[in-house]
Amino acid sequence: MTETIDLKRRYLMAGTVAATGLLASGVRVNAQEDNPLPDYVDWKDPEAMIVHSNNTLETRRDAFGTSILTPEDKLYIRNNVSPPDESILDDRDAWEVSIEGVAEPRTLTVGELKTLGIDTVTMVLQCSGNGRGYFEHAPSGTPWQVGAAGNVMWTGVPLRAVVDALGGPADGANFITGTGGETIPEGLDANDVMVERSVPIDVIDTVMLAWDLNGEPISLAHGGPLRMIVPGFTGVNNVKYVKTVSLTAEETQAAIQRTRYRLQPVGEEGGPEHPSVWQMNVKSFITSPLETASAGTVQVTGVAFGGINAVESVEVSVDGGATWQAAEFIGPDMGRYAWRTFALAADLPAGSHVITSRATDSEGNVQPEDVEPNEPGYNHNGWRAHGVEIMVS
Amino acid sequence: MTETIDLKRRYLMAGTVAATGLLASGVRVNAQEDNPLPDYVDWKDPEAMIVHSNNTLETRRDAFGTSILTPEDKLYIRNNVSPPDESILDDRDAWEVSIEGVAEPRTLTVGELKTLGIDTVTMVLQCSGNGRGYFEHAPSGTPWQVGAAGNVMWTGVPLRAVVDALGGPADGANFITGTGGETIPEGLDANDVMVERSVPIDVIDTVMLAWDLNGEPISLAHGGPLRMIVPGFTGVNNVKYVKTVSLTAEETQAAIQRTRYRLQPVGEEGGPEHPSVWQMNVKSFITSPLETASAGTVQVTGVAFGGINAVESVEVSVDGGATWQAAEFIGPDMGRYAWRTFALAADLPAGSHVITSRATDSEGNVQPEDVEPNEPGYNHNGWRAHGVEIMVS
Repeated sequence: MTETIDLKRRYLMAGTVAATGLLASGVRVNAQEDNPLPDYVDWKDPEAMIVHSNNTLETRRDAFGTSILTPEDKLYIRNNVSPPDESILDDRDAWEVSIEGVAEPRTLTVGELKTLGIDTVTMVLQCSGNGRGYFEHAPSGTPWQVGAAGNVMWTGVPLRAVVDALGGPADGANFITGTGGETIPEGLDANDVMVERSVPIDVIDTVMLAWDLNGEPISLAHGGPLRMIVPGFTGVNNVKYVKTVSLTAEETQAAIQRTRYRLQPVGEEGGPEHPSVWQMNVKSFITSPLETASAGTVQVTGVAFGGINAVESVEVSVDGGATWQAAEFIGPDMGRYAWRTFALAADLPAGSHVITSRATDSEGNVQPEDVEPNEPGYNHNGWRAHGVEIMVS
Repeated sequence: MTETIDLKRRYLMAGTVAATGLLASGVRVNAQEDNPLPDYVDWKDPEAMIVHSNNTLETRRDAFGTSILTPEDKLYIRNNVSPPDESILDDRDAWEVSIEGVAEPRTLTVGELKTLGIDTVTMVLQCSGNGRGYFEHAPSGTPWQVGAAGNVMWTGVPLRAVVDALGGPADGANFITGTGGETIPEGLDANDVMVERSVPIDVIDTVMLAWDLNGEPISLAHGGPLRMIVPGFTGVNNVKYVKTVSLTAEETQAAIQRTRYRLQPVGEEGGPEHPSVWQMNVKSFITSPLETASAGTVQVTGVAFGGINAVESVEVSVDGGATWQAAEFIGPDMGRYAWRTFALAADLPAGSHVITSRATDSEGNVQPEDVEPNEPGYNHNGWRAHGVEIMVS
């Protein structure tokens, strides 16, 4: 459980914070800080992770640090199906991906992909449900707070280079559909279980088939030996162990696309009539301080990103949103899809302060105070819920 | 020993490569690949490091990968004096640095520095002697090839913010002089041994007192708890365990400044009449392939940086410098002092190929074919010596 949550709980119990409206969701947080790391990710930094379950691990808010990039051993995990056997990493260059919906469809090995082109992109990888723990209607699913997100660097071949090498898209292609290499448990209908996601073909020039994460071969937990990367789209659209990439006329009929990861109103079932969870929105959150500080000048730091757009600016409030000051971005700008770290020198007298941040993207979209809830609890970017209350002494 | 060196030696022994002029220095390489990691850096990646000695560890050329940033466990080590006892890391925020040569000189703790400002910079950290192994006059000192360099991110307080908080520079300040916290062995003259370096005050707006390296507290080996960072200047100018920062009228009289790290002609002793090793120059080198490749299209990758300037462009030759093709930078531009990775898709038929690269900085400086030698073997950036010979089959 993060320090922030501890603090919120403490205040809730003392009954002093209800007026801020910040903390309604705190009571349903059930992160199990003391759960051990699952075997397949025993190389993760235990100090940095909150283990919700075998397939859901969150980065602690105080573990993001100042590196801009999130190290792989601190990066969150969210698997819809357990990973395949790790033997698929025995010969990474031999992994095969079938490219379909092009003029000359064929199967290519990773080794062959590596001759077709190379690029590197830095982007926020964020679970669709990051922030779910802040929704007041208590959606089912992991109650992520801020840590189902990280800023990582992928290296691979641009999908455009692969498609061009195979004669270009077939006629009538509207979607890029990626199929994951997870093993479907016996007795289950593949359509109900498999990870197959479709995204609009208009993003084809940014999609990558990646073999490296932060410069190292991608671990099994994060989709190695090959992952389909869709910058600016939520995590589920970045298909792990990708075994088929198809340019298709229609979206896949897999349940994970047809009924799940939809933005339906609270109380409804998801279906094709509801928007898919695709592009990410503008968001920011404070990473320090989170619990206490010494009175005087305090460097308030955090991260901000624009999702599908670049982030343009960010403001910080140290009075729960009553007033705002422009913060400065610090460190390198790693591109449109990356997050930026920011800092504001704030003068804080002794006492309790609610600190939060509000980002604006390059299209002028401003992080809202609150969000309209959706049944599954996706895309929460409300600045009020993301605030922290600290005690200055 | 790196694969490249192995290859060079093999060719030298076969007598087939002398005509390229590339390999004269290969014979004196004495890297000890099988030396174990010293205790104080037993957390380094042994697969990535060449251990020359306890205080000199080089990154293998094939270990740079595609991450742009060099992870701390793969970063080279060069200590002029052995590190202080690691107990100096017990309470990092309590480390004290004396700020002198300002209107109101005083001692500040790291904890106090953290309230004065925060910034992050990505920069090439490179030993003055990186590439020494390519000089034909066989300078004394570690025969580094390419791996006494890395691209890393520092977080700390801008020196300007510290100086401003103390009333600004005293009159007559011409240099920024940093003193390291190494323990001077008993019986030795401190001036002969201590790490105290002066750099021109005109870079004051880029100097940082840093506590984080790649987002984590700086290890003892790399200068924690506090290091003076001078972007664009060679490694020695970035003083570890910095305990005094003084704005001074004159350069320090310490031997490491007065007679060492000078660019004197071959055969001469160094002295104040010779230029100091300060700003880095434009440079690039190939990182893949280094030994073999399959005939056809090969993605040639490498890194390029401008040193004190930004890098503007880079060309690749696959015929030993006879012809050149423009390569593309890939991935994010992390700022003026950072290196960039580049790639060129080259069509290589079977046979032997000499691959090299040539960078140009923002001021129009081009990496030269060869360099004028200096006695200590500093600042080698000649593109011919940095080339590799690969066998394509």
